[in-house]
Amino acid sequence: VIKNLDVTLRDGGYRNNFSFPREYAIAHARESAAAGLEWVEIGYRKGSFKPIEGIGLTGRSDDDYIRAVAAAIGPERVCVILHPHNVTEADIHEMYEAGVRLIRICASSVRPLDPALGLVRLGKAAGLTVAVNFTRASRIEPRHLVRLTGSVADAGADVVYIADSNGSMTPSETSRLITLVRSVSDAAEVGLHAHANLGLALPNAIAAVDAGATWMDSSVLGMGKGPGNLRTEQWLAYLARIGQGDHYDFGRLLALADRLQREIPESVPALPLADLALACFDLSVEDKAKLPIGQAAEIFLAARMLAEEYAAA
Amino acid sequence: VIKNLDVTLRDGGYRNNFSFPREYAIAHARESAAAGLEWVEIGYRKGSFKPIEGIGLTGRSDDDYIRAVAAAIGPERVCVILHPHNVTEADIHEMYEAGVRLIRICASSVRPLDPALGLVRLGKAAGLTVAVNFTRASRIEPRHLVRLTGSVADAGADVVYIADSNGSMTPSETSRLITLVRSVSDAAEVGLHAHANLGLALPNAIAAVDAGATWMDSSVLGMGKGPGNLRTEQWLAYLARIGQGDHYDFGRLLALADRLQREIPESVPALPLADLALACFDLSVEDKAKLPIGQAAEIFLAARMLAEEYAAA
Repeated sequence: VIKNLDVTLRDGGYRNNFSFPREYAIAHARESAAAGLEWVEIGYRKGSFKPIEGIGLTGRSDDDYIRAVAAAIGPERVCVILHPHNVTEADIHEMYEAGVRLIRICASSVRPLDPALGLVRLGKAAGLTVAVNFTRASRIEPRHLVRLTGSVADAGADVVYIADSNGSMTPSETSRLITLVRSVSDAAEVGLHAHANLGLALPNAIAAVDAGATWMDSSVLGMGKGPGNLRTEQWLAYLARIGQGDHYDFGRLLALADRLQREIPESVPALPLADLALACFDLSVEDKAKLPIGQAAEIFLAARMLAEEYAAA
Repeated sequence: VIKNLDVTLRDGGYRNNFSFPREYAIAHARESAAAGLEWVEIGYRKGSFKPIEGIGLTGRSDDDYIRAVAAAIGPERVCVILHPHNVTEADIHEMYEAGVRLIRICASSVRPLDPALGLVRLGKAAGLTVAVNFTRASRIEPRHLVRLTGSVADAGADVVYIADSNGSMTPSETSRLITLVRSVSDAAEVGLHAHANLGLALPNAIAAVDAGATWMDSSVLGMGKGPGNLRTEQWLAYLARIGQGDHYDFGRLLALADRLQREIPESVPALPLADLALACFDLSVEDKAKLPIGQAAEIFLAARMLAEEYAAA
């Protein structure tokens, strides 16, 4: 059985500077849980990777907000994500006290893994379920990914996530990466965090589950960074079509999608051609700054040149 | 190698009553052909299934329009689709004379096949490439589909298409249907016409090709009936990512997508929640009229009841 995690309030935050009204955020978590989503990721603890000026409620996830959500849905569905450099040991205990039961720790192949491993051990000792998310997984060399996964599993993590941050992965690449990680993750389960830049979030989710992934991130209307994530309503409709979605209340999910659409204008789904062009070359959202502002066709040609420069460097 | 067919001017016509400005339609065909699409379907011959009041240019495909497109891109890429009850033998010859080289004949499991078979033979005798499209394939009983395919292949059709008119098919269903049809189509190749109601157009296209389909419909920005079709730009990006798209000019395709977006407001991509709800129960766009106008959640519940009534009847 798949554990579905709603990342709308967190990844969707990149669209509105994490400034969801408090009332909406709590109602969203309540309706998401009522629709049957196993976990609701309510935000970042103390900021995203880089500091963001005036970051809103779901970019901070202070104890007060956590308590309000936990009171609404019960701690057993409350998830918070974090970057190791933003938190201390005290945060782990404070979050547990406030009502978090799952923490997700962002990790990468280009930064030391030790801080993340330390937090895995602290989290497990505090009684939390702990996941580690490898960001920009499309850029991690396979042997390195095996070593990283082994270390995370040995530290006691419950879940290892592959995050397709560039939205550039194909179903066969997803299948291969999930198989690879699943093969060396021992007791830890494996999850996918998909992005829709190429329109492949749903095919990649299907491929990931076929390859053994048991945790899946999605967001309502796909609201997430850039072109967004796997769309919860499409994913649960798919699970229902293949006979694995009977325990979700799809009508309730659609009502939530309608409400999100109505109350949070930044949630409007869009798959900009420029993001598609970037993902064709596995470039990141950060590379966008190096490209001309203009028509998709110009961006595509400039992206190809940039990718060639990277390859030559 | 996959034959890609751009259906924007035809299926997209459901969004704007087929009223593409003549200048745009010709420019679209030219740019689509220049981007490398093997075929451009420029419209219906003499109307869609039911008569539509004031139907525009690409709903009629008169000889003059065909000639203008054929002059712009050469006959070898010009495709027109038709419903058998709208045309006579004379149309077949007139279309060929004007510059059509591929006709696609709509067929269904709920109407007699003989008129379509007669047109297949006429089309072949006239020197055309001929495809037959089985609409609403999700509702065709498999043994019946095998018989229909056999008849169409025996009549000499070059391609048999499965059309997921309700947008309700999953990748595994698509794979099964394409395998079934391919198994009995003999010399005829097999194609897929996908719809995006469940967000599964791209996964279904991937599954279809993996199962042996060699013809694929798509439309720029997905512009098509209801939530639309497989998006050409996503599909060609996918083919490029898996190393099968080098002969397409992706920058030129993106420029066309930008232009379509700018000049034809109805092309704006959207995946309405109500259409997703209908496709959950394999209901058609015609069933929409039997459901309440309102929030997606209400439509979902009403759609479920309607599907239960159909199942009981």
